[in-house]
Amino acid sequence: MSFAPSTALRPDSFVPVSVPVEDRVHAARGEFAAVLDMRHAGPRPIRLRYEWVGPADAPVVVLAGGISANRHVAANAQFGEKGWAEGLVGPGRTLDPQRLRVLAFDFIGADGALDVPIDTADQADALAILLDHLGIAQLQAFVGYSYGALVAQQFGLRHRRRVQRLVVVSGAHRAHPYAAAWRALQRRAVALGQLQCSDENGLALARQFAMLSYRTPEEFSERFDAAPEVINGRVRVAAEDYLDAAAAQYVARTPVTAWLRLSESIDLHRIEPAQLLLPTVVVAVEGDRLVPLADLVSLVEGLGPRGSLRVLRSPYGHDAFLKETDRIDAILANAIRIPGETA
Amino acid sequence: MSFAPSTALRPDSFVPVSVPVEDRVHAARGEFAAVLDMRHAGPRPIRLRYEWVGPADAPVVVLAGGISANRHVAANAQFGEKGWAEGLVGPGRTLDPQRLRVLAFDFIGADGALDVPIDTADQADALAILLDHLGIAQLQAFVGYSYGALVAQQFGLRHRRRVQRLVVVSGAHRAHPYAAAWRALQRRAVALGQLQCSDENGLALARQFAMLSYRTPEEFSERFDAAPEVINGRVRVAAEDYLDAAAAQYVARTPVTAWLRLSESIDLHRIEPAQLLLPTVVVAVEGDRLVPLADLVSLVEGLGPRGSLRVLRSPYGHDAFLKETDRIDAILANAIRIPGETA
Repeated sequence: MSFAPSTALRPDSFVPVSVPVEDRVHAARGEFAAVLDMRHAGPRPIRLRYEWVGPADAPVVVLAGGISANRHVAANAQFGEKGWAEGLVGPGRTLDPQRLRVLAFDFIGADGALDVPIDTADQADALAILLDHLGIAQLQAFVGYSYGALVAQQFGLRHRRRVQRLVVVSGAHRAHPYAAAWRALQRRAVALGQLQCSDENGLALARQFAMLSYRTPEEFSERFDAAPEVINGRVRVAAEDYLDAAAAQYVARTPVTAWLRLSESIDLHRIEPAQLLLPTVVVAVEGDRLVPLADLVSLVEGLGPRGSLRVLRSPYGHDAFLKETDRIDAILANAIRIPGETA
Repeated sequence: MSFAPSTALRPDSFVPVSVPVEDRVHAARGEFAAVLDMRHAGPRPIRLRYEWVGPADAPVVVLAGGISANRHVAANAQFGEKGWAEGLVGPGRTLDPQRLRVLAFDFIGADGALDVPIDTADQADALAILLDHLGIAQLQAFVGYSYGALVAQQFGLRHRRRVQRLVVVSGAHRAHPYAAAWRALQRRAVALGQLQCSDENGLALARQFAMLSYRTPEEFSERFDAAPEVINGRVRVAAEDYLDAAAAQYVARTPVTAWLRLSESIDLHRIEPAQLLLPTVVVAVEGDRLVPLADLVSLVEGLGPRGSLRVLRSPYGHDAFLKETDRIDAILANAIRIPGETA
C-alpha cells in the first residue's frame, strides 16, 4: 500500500513518518473564530468547528451531510460516540481512515448563533477558510450528501483549484419547487410554535413533516400497517409513536434558529451546472421525494462530459445515503480513485 | 330518449309526467334532523343537508367528493353559484341533469357540530336515512371521489340493495400508512394553532400541507419555477403566495372541528374488499401521492370479477377528478350505463 505525497502544507508534527500505519491514524477536533463575508448578510463573525480522522499525510476527503449532520462522521479511537455516517467511514470502506484523511465540519449556523440568511456559497467559503487554517492545499475529493451536496457544488464553483473531484449525492443544482414549498411550510410550523413561545412544539412538527419527505410510502407501508386507534376521542395512526420519538430526540439537540436558517439555505441554493468545471459523480435515488431523479439528470446534462450519473433505487428515498451504505460505498470506490492504488 | 321507471317511491308531486324534458329538470335543497347511531360515539342528533338536480322520475346517482366537497355539485337554474364538480355535471355530460337525477349531501360533521370520531360507515348510514327521507329505494350508481369513494364503499357494504353499482375514484379500502401519517401531522398543525387560540393559523397550515399531498411535483415545477426571495431577512419561495391565498379562502369557509373530524375519518376507514358484492369501477391516478395506484390495484383484486380498474396519468395527482373532467366523464360514461339508452 502506498500513499500519494501529502496534500497537507503543515503536517501535524506529532505524526512521525516511520510509525506503522495503525499508529498513524489519528483523529483531531478543533474550533476557531473567523470572519466570513456572507452573501446576504455581509461580514459576520463565525466559529468553525471541524474533526478529521486518518493519517495526517494522506489525501484529504471532505464528507458533508444533511443539515442535521455534523463534524463527527464516525466513531474512532479518540472520539468513541457514533457518527452520522457510521456505515461509510471505517476500515475496509472506501473512506478508510487508514488510507485517507476524512475531514468534516459543522455547517456555519448549525450552532444557532447566526440568525441571517445563509447561502450554500457561505458554507463553501467557510470550508476554504478551514482548509487554510489546517494547511490543506487541495482535497482529493468532496463527498457531499443532501445539503452537503449543495455545498460541494458551491465549493467546486468558487474554489475549483482546491478540490480534484466531487461526489454529489441526492442534491441538485437548485431546489425543486415542490420540495421548497414543503420546507417553507415546515418553517411555518416553527413560526406557529414560536407565536406561543413553544419553539419545541413547532420544531418537532417541522421535523416530522421533514421526515415524511426523507422517507418513502413503501417504507411506511411495511412498518406502520396497524389499524388506527381511537384514544381519548381522537384518532391516532400507527406511525405517530415513531414520529414522536424521532422528533423528541431531534428537538433536544437542534437549536431552532439553526434549523430555520439551514432549511432556508437549501432553498436559496442555485448554481449553473455548466460553470462547474470539475469531474463530478452525481448519485440519484429513484424513490427520493425531495430531490427527484429528473433534477439530477438535468444537473448531469449541464455538467456535460465532466458529469456522470449513478442511480439507486431504494425504499429509503432521500435517506438512502445513510441506509444503503454498502451500495453507496461501492459507488464511492469507483468515484474516488486513490492515487497510487490499484483497484 | 327514454327513461327507466323511476326509482323514487314518492315522486315529488310538483313534477307532472307530461311536461317537456327541460321543464322537468328541477333542483331542490333540503335539510332535516335525524338521529344516527354512530360507530364510535353511539346515537347522536345530526342534521342532514342535501341537494338534487334533474327530473324527479329519473334514475338517481349520488355524487360525493372530498372532505371539502358539499351538496352543491354544479350551478343550476335554482342555485346559480359554482359547485365543486362543475365540469362533471351538466348538459352533454354523463351526469346530465336532463337524464339523471344527481343527488349530493353535506357530509355529517361538515358543519362542525359533531365533535366525535366520525366513521365512513356513519356517512353511509346517514345517506340511507336521506334516501328514506326522499323516498328513493335504489340508486342507479354511487360515484364517490376521494373521501366520497370511501363512503361509497361503505354504502355498498352496508346498504347493498340500495345501489346498483359503484364508481370509486382515488379512494382505497384503507388509508395508506404514509398518507395517514401526513394527515396526522396536519391535525397536529391544527392542534398547535389551537394551543394559542389561533384556529385559523393552524388550519391554514394544515390545509397547505394537504394541498401538497393533493398535487404533484410536476405541477409545482411548471407553476413555481421562480427563484426564492429574501424578504425582511427571511427566505420566501415561489409557491408561498399561492399557498397563502388558497389557505385563506379555505379557512374562511371551513370550521376547524369539521376539518379535524373528517380528516380523522379518512384514516379510520377500513373495509374488506371481498365483502363488497357490487359491480365496482375503480379509477386510479398514477401520479396520486395520497392514494397510490398499488392500493387501488389491491382493492380491485379483492373485488374479484366484480371489480374493474381504470388508470389515469395526470399531473394533478389526487385532484385529477376535479381537473381532468373530460377524461373522468368518459370513464363515467362507460361505468354508468343508463337503462334504456344505447351507447
